This record gives sequence, structure tokens and C-alpha cells, in this order.
Amino acid sequence: MPFLVTLTTDFGTRDPYVGAMKGVIAKIAPEARIMDLGHEIAPGNITEAALFVGATVPYFPVGTIHTVVVDPGVGTERRPIVVCALGQVLVAPDNGIVTVLEKRHRIDAAYCIENTSLMRDAISHTFHGRDVFAPVAAHLAQGAAVEAVGARIETWVRLTWPEATQDTAGAIDGMIVHVDRFGNAITTIPASMLEPGAPYVAHAQQQQFPLRQTYGAAAPGTPLAVLGSTGYVELSVNGAHAAERFGLALGMPVHIGRT
Amino acid sequence: MPFLVTLTTDFGTRDPYVGAMKGVIAKIAPEARIMDLGHEIAPGNITEAALFVGATVPYFPVGTIHTVVVDPGVGTERRPIVVCALGQVLVAPDNGIVTVLEKRHRIDAAYCIENTSLMRDAISHTFHGRDVFAPVAAHLAQGAAVEAVGARIETWVRLTWPEATQDTAGAIDGMIVHVDRFGNAITTIPASMLEPGAPYVAHAQQQQFPLRQTYGAAAPGTPLAVLGSTGYVELSVNGAHAAERFGLALGMPVHIGRT
Amino acid sequence: MPFLVTLTTDFGTRDPYVGAMKGVIAKIAPEARIMDLGHEIAPGNITEAALFVGATVPYFPVGTIHTVVVDPGVGTERRPIVVCALGQVLVAPDNGIVTVLEKRHRIDAAYCIENTSLMRDAISHTFHGRDVFAPVAAHLAQGAAVEAVGARIETWVRLTWPEATQDTAGAIDGMIVHVDRFGNAITTIPASMLEPGAPYVAHAQQQQFPLRQTYGAAAPGTPLAVLGSTGYVELSVNGAHAAERFGLALGMPVHIGRT
Repeated sequence: MPFLVTLTTDFGTRDPYVGAMKGVIAKIAPEARIMDLGHEIAPGNITEAALFVGATVPYFPVGTIHTVVVDPGVGTERRPIVVCALGQVLVAPDNGIVTVLEKRHRIDAAYCIENTSLMRDAISHTFHGRDVFAPVAAHLAQGAAVEAVGARIETWVRLTWPEATQDTAGAIDGMIVHVDRFGNAITTIPASMLEPGAPYVAHAQQQQFPLRQTYGAAAPGTPLAVLGSTGYVELSVNGAHAAERFGLALGMPVHIGRT
Repeated sequence: MPFLVTLTTDFGTRDPYVGAMKGVIAKIAPEARIMDLGHEIAPGNITEAALFVGATVPYFPVGTIHTVVVDPGVGTERRPIVVCALGQVLVAPDNGIVTVLEKRHRIDAAYCIENTSLMRDAISHTFHGRDVFAPVAAHLAQGAAVEAVGARIETWVRLTWPEATQDTAGAIDGMIVHVDRFGNAITTIPASMLEPGAPYVAHAQQQQFPLRQTYGAAAPGTPLAVLGSTGYVELSVNGAHAAERFGLALGMPVHIGRT
Repeated sequence: MPFLVTLTTDFGTRDPYVGAMKGVIAKIAPEARIMDLGHEIAPGNITEAALFVGATVPYFPVGTIHTVVVDPGVGTERRPIVVCALGQVLVAPDNGIVTVLEKRHRIDAAYCIENTSLMRDAISHTFHGRDVFAPVAAHLAQGAAVEAVGARIETWVRLTWPEATQDTAGAIDGMIVHVDRFGNAITTIPASMLEPGAPYVAHAQQQQFPLRQTYGAAAPGTPLAVLGSTGYVELSVNGAHAAERFGLALGMPVHIGRT
């Protein structure tokens, strides 16, 4: 079975950057299966990339090679790295992209990419997606060992992450870290902090969001909170864009207490 | 030949939802060929999804498995279903997604998805794309029989569809059901209602759109109507965005008569 | 090894057009590997398509079949063509799409698509992507010879291209031809016109952009010029959208001189 190589970037698909990466991979690893995960990460937004990686990689089979290029520091001293977790491999800049994945899953090993024989012959200063990350991912798909990319490293960049906190009465304070396409505001509050089945209400922007099992459990147009599909509390409105409706945005505090 | 599994959603690709679905499919059906059809359906817009399905599925080969997740009712009582047509299979929520397909092609059978052994172990209340539809599609791609998903059903949800009407003089009344990326306004008026070769003019928003063979048959910037690629009359402007130019929008009436 | 068939269009993915093309290809060439390069080319923008082709095709392996459909003249007299270059094949309307590719790579042969047995049975006047280009690409992927598509042609459409000019003192005049997702303004000035290692500064919109090796070599928020990944000078801002910041747009003049 040929290797599966996924691509996640902030390049969009109007520009030729993703296409160039695919060509490089197809040339080195003609049998690799190349799969888009998403190219619409907000430009240069490493936090969003880290959430994306944390919410996709765990579903993939052992052996998958993920190429993740959200790389505002391209051309500077930031290292290119390979990270091993869940029997899979990530090829990415060392800028914090594994932060969310690492909160729940063990990183088994990491390597600094140094072996220029696995890169393109000419390496630009502005497009390591094409010149470094894509060819390294392709060589791994062709059977190169992860140890061949460079020296093993014991530390890598971790983003400062605003963990939710819980007081002795069980009330929780967190914040909004992402707004999705439907307008759901995803928070840092994990489902595991809530007692299953107990009644809760979330507060944000002077608005109450009672905890429900699903969007449709609230009347159309009314606010609610749900335990979202990634395991964190989300603030939503049934059938409308909660973030626009209530002015929810990244970094805003969210408080949850029992009713 | 491994099965072809297509994905159509309203998830966009900035969020990790499509990526998670692809991981689930790749894990269950490692040899399946996974293909994006489109993830930019307007959020929750079942009519747009039904038009999309009607304009894509008929071109695919026998044996294709289509996963269609536009699912505003996720977590409620709406059923997940499998629909067989054209020797292909659709895996989708039962909310009207096959309405347009069914106007021209026979539905051969439909089944309610009930077999939890074909789903993920833990099923969220908000993301059946990942937890129900993707794994069922993957198991079908691995050779599971459609009958294994659950009980056969004889009825499914059909959207109320505004059929075009024709008077005894041959004049036709329809409406706009979609505006595409180029600004073409697609109507409910089928080419089959028009006498081939006869001169017609469409009227909408106090504007005349003479029927032409192709966009370029009108002077640049001038309005025209064409028999669009999906078999319905479209209102267009050669080289410009007709909907913006003339304020065309969903639901607006369109009248066509002979000149 | 099955053939690789790529798709580049201005169709977007909200509409069903790309999905229909994929179905047509999958039906004719069930083993072909279908790969998206990008569907967000600005509607009808042939210049953007030509830049995209020039920045992607050279990275692909011999034998790749590229389907490029940016086709504002669909249904008119413009010819459908097949172009051979770099051991690869492009299937596209004859409207200038190979202009940029041809500046650096030799076109080995070109053919006018005339053989209706390689097209769909019914050919619409508005969607040759589905009815002509996709089926021809699929038949090529099934082993049809390029000579089978139609008569060899010796000329094809070339866009008028604004080449950069250099005076005897080495100063260069060019213009902006593309703004990418990050706000970088790509110019017509090739890296080959600059003396390696020499100090330069670009001027555009009354603003100076000193030439640097990479984005991070300038302080955050300050303007710079870089030798971009496609071999042309780009005007940028480290960590911000240069085009918005300085009002850079297509067609604007750019002057580069030594400091």
C-alpha cells in the first residue's frame, strides 16, 4: 500500500503554491497518495494550524505522513522538523504546530531536518513548502527512515496555551480560541471538566448560553452551548452564526457555571 | 479497482471537519480513493446541496459512493440514510438532498442507517459527518452491502420544488434557484420546455435577456439567456456578473416568452 | 502506474462544475489519479491562469496531464488545444494559458482538438470543461496518443506580456502582475536581471522596498523586496499584507535600482 501524504497550509488555492508542492511530491514519490486536508488556515496563524492538526491527525491511520506548512518565519532561523506521534509523521516548521496534538497524545520522537539530499537542489528563501517540506515528506513516503532527516531533538516549540481553570465550586473560566464556518465559538474548556448530565450555563459577552446536547435542542435563533466534536465547549446559535450575532471573537473570556 | 468515495459538504476547508472525515475513511478503507467534490455549499443550504448532487452524481461511474453532508439537523431526529441510484450510492442525512437527482433519475432503493457497528464507537451530537456518514461510506467501500446499514425505507424527505409552469401560448414562468460563481442565475425552467431553435426572451427584474446559444453570442456587457450546462435556462451577461449587474437573487420570478 | 490528471480552473468549488468534470474523468479513466491544483483562479482571468500554469507545471513528473479550464470564450470560435511541453501534456482552450510557461520552457508540439469521439456525446455551449477538456484529458490518460486529438498546429495564442526593461546603468523597470494571498506583489522583474549579492531597492507607489534575502530579514511591518519563489522580484511586508498596506495593484509600475 503506497503511503498517504496529507497537505495542510495557509496558502489558499488561488495561488500556485499548493500545486507546486503537489508536483514536487508526485515527482519524488509517484505512487504516494496525496490528500488535501485544508489550505485555508488564516495566513500565518499558527494557533489555528495547531488546532487543525489536533483535530485531524488523531483520525488518520498509522503510517500517514502529514505535511503542515503555516510558516510565517520561513527563511529565518526557525528549524524544519519531523515529529512522530500516533504511528504517524508530521513534517512542519518548528513553530508550535504540534501544541494541541501534544496535549492529548504522546510525541514519540522528533528530528531536525538537516539532510539536504532530501530537499530540492535549490532552496528558495521564501517557499520551504516546495523546497524543503514537500520533498522531505515525499522521501519519507518513498521509504526513507525518519532518522535520515537529521539529528534527533528533545525539545521543540510549544505555544503558550491558555488552559481553562476551575474553582472549588466547579465553575470554569476559559476563553474563545476559534470561530468556525458556522459561527460556533470553540473554547478552551474541555468536556472533561463538566459533570456529565449536570445542568450548566456558559456566559460570554453578557449573554447566557445554556448547555444542550445538540444545536437542535434549542429553539431556532436562540443561543446554546454544546460539547463540540473536538471535545471542547462551543457557543452556538441554532441555525445562525453565533459569533456574528453576539460579537464573539478570539481571546474573549467564557465562564461556565451550574444553573 | 478500489471504490471511489466522494465528499460534498458545507464545512469549508478552513476548519478541520473535512480533514477529520478523510482520516476516518482512510483508516477504515485504506485503499478507497477519496475525492473532493466541493465543501463550499452555503452553510445549511439543503436546496443548494440538492442542486449540486443533481449536477454531479449523474456523471460518475457505477459503484461510486457519494458522502454528502449538509446537515443543519445534526443530532435531531432526522435519519441518516443510504440511497441507491444510477448504480451508485449516496450516504447522507434524510433532509431532501436527493430531490433534484430524483427529478430525472430513478431511486432504486433507500435504507435507514441503523447499524452502529458501521459507525464510530463514540458518536458526537454535532458531527455525524465524522462519526456516522464517513465511516458508513468507508465500510461500503470495503465491501459492506447496502442492506447491512439498516432497514429498507420506502419514503424519504423531498424538498418542495417550484416547478416551472407553461401556459397554452407557450410562455413559461419559473424562478431563480441558484447564482453561480460567474454571476449566472440558474432558473427552474428546463430546456425541454423550449422549442429548439425558436426565438425567446426571458424577463426578470424589468430586464430582457434574449436567448442565445452561448455567452459570446451577445456583445460584451449585454444580458442574454442561455440553455445552461445542467439543462436549465440561465440568465447571464457576457463577461460580467449578471446577478450583481441586475440585482438577480434566489426566489425571483423569471418569465420566458417567444419574441 | 496510472496517469496523473490535474485540474486547474476558475470554477470555485461551491458550484458543481469541478465535481462534474471529475465524474467524467473517473468514468472514462477509472484508474487515473485526479488531482486538484486550484479552482480559485479569478473568473475569466487568463493572465492569472498563465502565471499559475507557469509556476506549477515545471514541478510535475513526465507524463502528467494537466487540464486547465479558464475559458471566458467558451462556445465561441476559440479552439480547444493540447500542448506538449516538458514531457507533459496540457489540455486547455487556446487563449494564452501557456504564455508564461513558454517563456522558460520549450513547447514541443501542439494540436487542435477536433476528434469528437474523444468528447462527450452531447456538447453544451457553455461547459466545455465537462464536455470537451475533461473527456479528452481522460482519454489521454487511457493511452490515447496526442496525435489522435486532431491536426498539429504551429501557432497558438500568446498573451502580450509586459517584459521588464533594463537601462545601461542596470536600473530596471517592470510592473506588478499578481498579488498573492499574503499580499506579496509579484512583478515582471526576473531575478536574472539582478547582480547576485548587490544592494538594490525597489520603488513603487512612492514607497521604497529594499531587497532582502527573506521576509524575516526586515523588521516586522516594514517593506522589503525579495527574490520570490517563482524567480521574480516580489514586494512584501514582513508579517503584513503589502498590497493593502501600500495600495499595490495589478499593472502598477515598479522600478529597481542599486542603492
